[in-house]
Amino acid sequence: MSLSLYDVTLPAFIRSFENLSAILKKGEAFADEKGLEHKTLLEARLIEDMGPLTAQIQRASDTAKFVAVRVAGIDNVPMADEEVTFADLHARIEKTVEILKAVEASAMDGKDEIEVVLKTGSGSKTFTARDYVLGFAIPNFYFHVTTAYAILRHKGVPIGKMDYLGSR
Amino acid sequence: MSLSLYDVTLPAFIRSFENLSAILKKGEAFADEKGLEHKTLLEARLIEDMGPLTAQIQRASDTAKFVAVRVAGIDNVPMADEEVTFADLHARIEKTVEILKAVEASAMDGKDEIEVVLKTGSGSKTFTARDYVLGFAIPNFYFHVTTAYAILRHKGVPIGKMDYLGSR
Repeated sequence: MSLSLYDVTLPAFIRSFENLSAILKKGEAFADEKGLEHKTLLEARLIEDMGPLTAQIQRASDTAKFVAVRVAGIDNVPMADEEVTFADLHARIEKTVEILKAVEASAMDGKDEIEVVLKTGSGSKTFTARDYVLGFAIPNFYFHVTTAYAILRHKGVPIGKMDYLGSR
Repeated sequence: MSLSLYDVTLPAFIRSFENLSAILKKGEAFADEKGLEHKTLLEARLIEDMGPLTAQIQRASDTAKFVAVRVAGIDNVPMADEEVTFADLHARIEKTVEILKAVEASAMDGKDEIEVVLKTGSGSKTFTARDYVLGFAIPNFYFHVTTAYAILRHKGVPIGKMDYLGSR
């Protein structure tokens, strides 16, 4: 046993948000270079009933923040999902990273078996914090970051796997 | 410290492969229902220079397998990336899951600081096993599973987040 719930979540999420921020900058630069309206990318979706780029950033933000709320026990900081520009998305990411950075690693110690209840469309689902982190939060976080990447890649933005993984 | 390198990788990957297998079955059923050739999905890409569905499964397989090779120290089992049908992809997933299930959790104990060297386009990159798992293997694994999902979703396959996360 060498890792804590904190180790496997918030530091990795912070790093991924830094990569995501750089990816969004490449998206914006691409739009400007091609003379595309920014909303061509910001409102882009892989299919009509899937969330657009803005929603993918919002859901990545919520997924990361709620690990801090549900496991570390910090007060929730509601965010209104009103982002419509690249600058708004960067502000959302910065605010989220600030929240994550303020969490002490020790705030998640000994929390593996606490109960985490998620509301679902059909009711609610109860996890231990450990199962919530490994089986829900981590895959869900990378789902939304990857989908943001996929939307931009699909639209022709010149990004590659190293942008997603980061080069450090 | 409540989690091991094993806890945060192979069991989660095995579960995700089970979800991925169910997603592929929904893709195949959709193609059959719509009278589409299977290759319309199997060879589908989000953009021309990105890997098709088959490659996403192959890379998810390799990413998971190489955690077992590089951290648990099992012998590599080369796989030739020759999958062209849904049945081939299911066989690839089954073979990968079999390899992962054969790894003893204890084989990854005490390995956090061992050196992991990845070949890259421009040379090589050296990680500790811990950084390799948290900063490379986990995000890369979910990248390819999500991209497989995204390709099928983009093509109209009726799948949702619960198919990706699993309902257990």
